[in-house]
Amino acid sequence: MTTTQARTEPEHAQGTDPHAGHAPAGHHGPHGYSAQKDAHLKRLRRIEGQIRGLQRMVDEDVYCIDVLTQVSASTKALQSFALSLLEEHLRHCVAAAAEEGGTELDAKVAEATAAISRLLRS
Amino acid sequence: MTTTQARTEPEHAQGTDPHAGHAPAGHHGPHGYSAQKDAHLKRLRRIEGQIRGLQRMVDEDVYCIDVLTQVSASTKALQSFALSLLEEHLRHCVAAAAEEGGTELDAKVAEATAAISRLLRS
Amino acid sequence: MTTTQARTEPEHAQGTDPHAGHAPAGHHGPHGYSAQKDAHLKRLRRIEGQIRGLQRMVDEDVYCIDVLTQVSASTKALQSFALSLLEEHLRHCVAAAAEEGGTELDAKVAEATAAISRLLRS
Amino acid sequence: MTTTQARTEPEHAQGTDPHAGHAPAGHHGPHGYSAQKDAHLKRLRRIEGQIRGLQRMVDEDVYCIDVLTQVSASTKALQSFALSLLEEHLRHCVAAAAEEGGTELDAKVAEATAAISRLLRS
Repeated sequence: MTTTQARTEPEHAQGTDPHAGHAPAGHHGPHGYSAQKDAHLKRLRRIEGQIRGLQRMVDEDVYCIDVLTQVSASTKALQSFALSLLEEHLRHCVAAAAEEGGTELDAKVAEATAAISRLLRS
Repeated sequence: MTTTQARTEPEHAQGTDPHAGHAPAGHHGPHGYSAQKDAHLKRLRRIEGQIRGLQRMVDEDVYCIDVLTQVSASTKALQSFALSLLEEHLRHCVAAAAEEGGTELDAKVAEATAAISRLLRS
Repeated sequence: MTTTQARTEPEHAQGTDPHAGHAPAGHHGPHGYSAQKDAHLKRLRRIEGQIRGLQRMVDEDVYCIDVLTQVSASTKALQSFALSLLEEHLRHCVAAAAEEGGTELDAKVAEATAAISRLLRS
Repeated sequence: MTTTQARTEPEHAQGTDPHAGHAPAGHHGPHGYSAQKDAHLKRLRRIEGQIRGLQRMVDEDVYCIDVLTQVSASTKALQSFALSLLEEHLRHCVAAAAEEGGTELDAKVAEATAAISRLLRS
């Protein structure tokens, strides 16, 4: 729940997003999400900690239902990470393709939709 | 499965998509998906038929597991419909906002991400 | 949200569930969920109404994001229906298999797990 | 995909499952899944490796869509782990409650259904 709520914070926290416009590629790396790299890595390390917590739970014979609750929390955290990546992708890569227009936009949108489809099926 | 595969067909079927560029709003309605209205309505009528099929199954005491299989198929069909709507939305509304740039793009991307989040949690 | 909360109500509402024990098959039909048939059918008719509402929304060019919100609500309602079916199935069919023991239980549990897996992937 | 297929293998691989019947609690720990502890831990360590792989990908500015594909794989692996836990839980705890009958079974089934609901919403 809290992780879900936290989803859009990294983006919105910086009211004056330096790459909301069209900062040079060199500024935030080749794919637009480098500027948020630290937030992403921190989030992933927390998920890694949750997975290690799951190992401890299994090792200590914690009641199955409680293990399942923790699995749900980890899955939610992963989905939440995916959504923040996706939001950046739409804001940078898809938007950049929209400015170029034509087939590039179509390709980017189809690619993003396929990624969302994989998230929905997982 | 087949419904999933069929997801992007309506768009791609028309190789020369008249509104891939920036057709006047009047041409394909206010929100970009009107041109595909018939495909959407057909898809929804098929889902409505699946829901009525579920009512028949329950009424005839069909084995629970078989009913659940049909529920999964209907849910997949709904997700698939959502993905095709979303793809159009990204291609038209988000792309249009990207051309305007600035806060409008941020707002549209945040709105689309929130919609994807609701799909993931449902 | 409300549909989710309502999930276990039909079962719990009837404090003295006549088939919580092991009523004869003739009493509640061949697969255990017939006693709740009315609740299931009512729920499915409501979902059918939601799907027809979606058709109206598409027909009237409602904004894509609002259509997507309604799709999420319908998917949630379907999942909720699936959970109530599954709960009955576990309480009746799986429990009956457990009393018989042996391979019948294994088969029923594997079958239920496969159904849950399909729900998760849809 | 492969992880999904592998879901029920640990259980089914051992054709002569020593606790398919009703082995004494001391034999396989307090909650029935201890006998499969090694398989569970191995699976979780693999998921932990996937999460570390995600950190490397973010650190090396891998293209967002490729990161998202790996997130989907990790989520699938977690769901797959949850399903194998759940299957054991149904086979042991729910089945044991079924033999006792009465309110204990109702409580266990409601608890399992709530856990499945959390998995579906995550």
